[in-house]
Amino acid sequence: MTRFVTKEKLARLFDRLENLGIQVLFIGDSEGHRDVNVKYLTGHPEDAILFVDVQNRQTILIPWDYQLANEYAEADHIVNIMEHNGGIIPAAIETLKEIVDDNPKIGVSKEISYFYVRNIIDSLPNTEILFDPREIDAELDQLRSIKSPYEISLLKKSFKISNKLVEEIEGRMKTHTDIETEVDLSIFVENRMRKLGAFGAGFESLVASSARSWQIHTYPRADKLPMYRPGLALIDFGVNAAGFTSDVTLPFIMGPMNKKMKKIVETVMKVHDEAIEKLQDATFLHEVAENAVSTIEEAGFKMPHSLGHGIGLTVHDAPVLRKRPTHETLKKHWTKVPLEQGMVFTIEPGIYEKDVGGFRIENDVVITSKGPEMATNAHPIFIDL
Amino acid sequence: MTRFVTKEKLARLFDRLENLGIQVLFIGDSEGHRDVNVKYLTGHPEDAILFVDVQNRQTILIPWDYQLANEYAEADHIVNIMEHNGGIIPAAIETLKEIVDDNPKIGVSKEISYFYVRNIIDSLPNTEILFDPREIDAELDQLRSIKSPYEISLLKKSFKISNKLVEEIEGRMKTHTDIETEVDLSIFVENRMRKLGAFGAGFESLVASSARSWQIHTYPRADKLPMYRPGLALIDFGVNAAGFTSDVTLPFIMGPMNKKMKKIVETVMKVHDEAIEKLQDATFLHEVAENAVSTIEEAGFKMPHSLGHGIGLTVHDAPVLRKRPTHETLKKHWTKVPLEQGMVFTIEPGIYEKDVGGFRIENDVVITSKGPEMATNAHPIFIDL
Repeated sequence: MTRFVTKEKLARLFDRLENLGIQVLFIGDSEGHRDVNVKYLTGHPEDAILFVDVQNRQTILIPWDYQLANEYAEADHIVNIMEHNGGIIPAAIETLKEIVDDNPKIGVSKEISYFYVRNIIDSLPNTEILFDPREIDAELDQLRSIKSPYEISLLKKSFKISNKLVEEIEGRMKTHTDIETEVDLSIFVENRMRKLGAFGAGFESLVASSARSWQIHTYPRADKLPMYRPGLALIDFGVNAAGFTSDVTLPFIMGPMNKKMKKIVETVMKVHDEAIEKLQDATFLHEVAENAVSTIEEAGFKMPHSLGHGIGLTVHDAPVLRKRPTHETLKKHWTKVPLEQGMVFTIEPGIYEKDVGGFRIENDVVITSKGPEMATNAHPIFIDL
Repeated sequence: MTRFVTKEKLARLFDRLENLGIQVLFIGDSEGHRDVNVKYLTGHPEDAILFVDVQNRQTILIPWDYQLANEYAEADHIVNIMEHNGGIIPAAIETLKEIVDDNPKIGVSKEISYFYVRNIIDSLPNTEILFDPREIDAELDQLRSIKSPYEISLLKKSFKISNKLVEEIEGRMKTHTDIETEVDLSIFVENRMRKLGAFGAGFESLVASSARSWQIHTYPRADKLPMYRPGLALIDFGVNAAGFTSDVTLPFIMGPMNKKMKKIVETVMKVHDEAIEKLQDATFLHEVAENAVSTIEEAGFKMPHSLGHGIGLTVHDAPVLRKRPTHETLKKHWTKVPLEQGMVFTIEPGIYEKDVGGFRIENDVVITSKGPEMATNAHPIFIDL
């Protein structure tokens, strides 16, 4: 494993951070606080603090598993926390003291843990914390959003297995073969993707029978509920073929639909198709999302989540397809994101009504020089009961 | 689903927070920042902000999925974010403004996202953020650490299935049945636990063949590497039978051991047995951990992780069995934790050497009125090649 960021992109990151007056960018990934930037910028899989040391133009990784980092990570320095009493925070603070001056300007990304920030301030009281999502996070997100041809080739392996699975799921569900409950479908998909050559699941598959498809993200992810009951059901799964994950939702229409179900299904499919269409000529991503929200609201419904999100090393990667925020505090940290070649994201409109059920369809789209390219083949599947 | 905290415990939490001068405790659980306290205090599974409103002695939940919360959560108020433009942060800020005065004192737990803190301060500039892990986090941890008889009964269901799995894994591995690779073993365990009645895996099983057992947490969790190779191997798995997870590591000794392997295995087993012994009369948890560290260091090794951790609604629950910190910044936030009846935690010493391999054994222990009770039966398994 090596880092996914290219040399050119890393150089650009150093330049941008320097322009912002940042001496060191502090990035932390831990069990409670996942931050994919560690993996993207170094290749190290998880559980580490990373310093992008702008002044000295170097990266310093402070991993929980030093031996693992030596095997996998690409960084200018790797710190052994066992030489700092086994503590990742002490090791980070001591390293930081060596590389900054008396008035450090430390940049942080949006989702950093407050505990890290407090530890920095407690140990280096003259520190200025530079928090600026419109600059720092927007830059990191943009680097990750635009996939390199190599990253797209890895994603394509996941799409291929996903599409095979869509066919197989459709076949089994239509013929009532082997699958009785949500758990059965989940086990089938997660085992089968490995047999088809995947590394593993990109995330735990979500299976909702009609009894609970009104849940946006099913909890538990799959339960012992029967699949063959009238109404709306779905499976949301991701294939991680070679480090990069796909994300697909396949809706099932179990038996005949009533009027309200029909309206939900038609509205969601309209939003899906309009979004793909809109990607032909949109300038900014929020425009595509705003169009989707309007169509849903005109039909008398609400969509309780974004229209889509990037996929990559993690299932919820940058960019996000969401309407412009209206609330003051969010507006302050928000910035427009242009639609660009190399982006790979989901389009996943959904409507969820407690008394009727939920319907979501989700496909992955690659933005090529010729426009949007559908990478997956999710479609509504009609099941006779 | 309802909350796991008892009425008495919740009353105690309000009292303690009041004594600390906290008006509202702000707890957030999101995809990037898991905080089990939301689930513990309300029963709501995930993705929500929770206010423990001390002044008004009420709990207010701001969930991402409002319909799910109405079904599952126990809170005095549940806010519908769709009435706040679908934004969880705007909904939280507006709710906060309604319940606090002009100089709010907002308590935060250690692992809160810095983004939340910045949004609070930006929107309510006179806010005083009360961050005090020795009081706030220690109190929450203590509530969760001491399991009720009901919680222990749920854990016992997980132990039962885990112990059955240990027998079955031992049987299959010794007879070379069906399992060739790490992935095979992982799939076997995760499917089999569901067949034995579990809700699902408590976490993705970690399987390390001898080629990479030196990794503390294998990445990927299971790979296509062959299991039947000489050296040290292991599987680390958790069973979630009814919401609460077990956590067990089963080490395999594949073929004959060389001198260094023998020393590693003997040292780890000695530390394991000593720790159980020490739990008979220890006063504080760090004493047990410090004894383990001494034994390992006397043998010339290092242990790159804690001796153990609580288990419960999440696999890494409170308390943690770790030696006293020596670094200033960590000492400031640390507090002694007494060994108490009702605690349920792992004992999991391990040593990892790049050239030899890794060896970890992990069992779960329940602290009863009569002392420590071994709840699981992990033991070294010797495999002929």
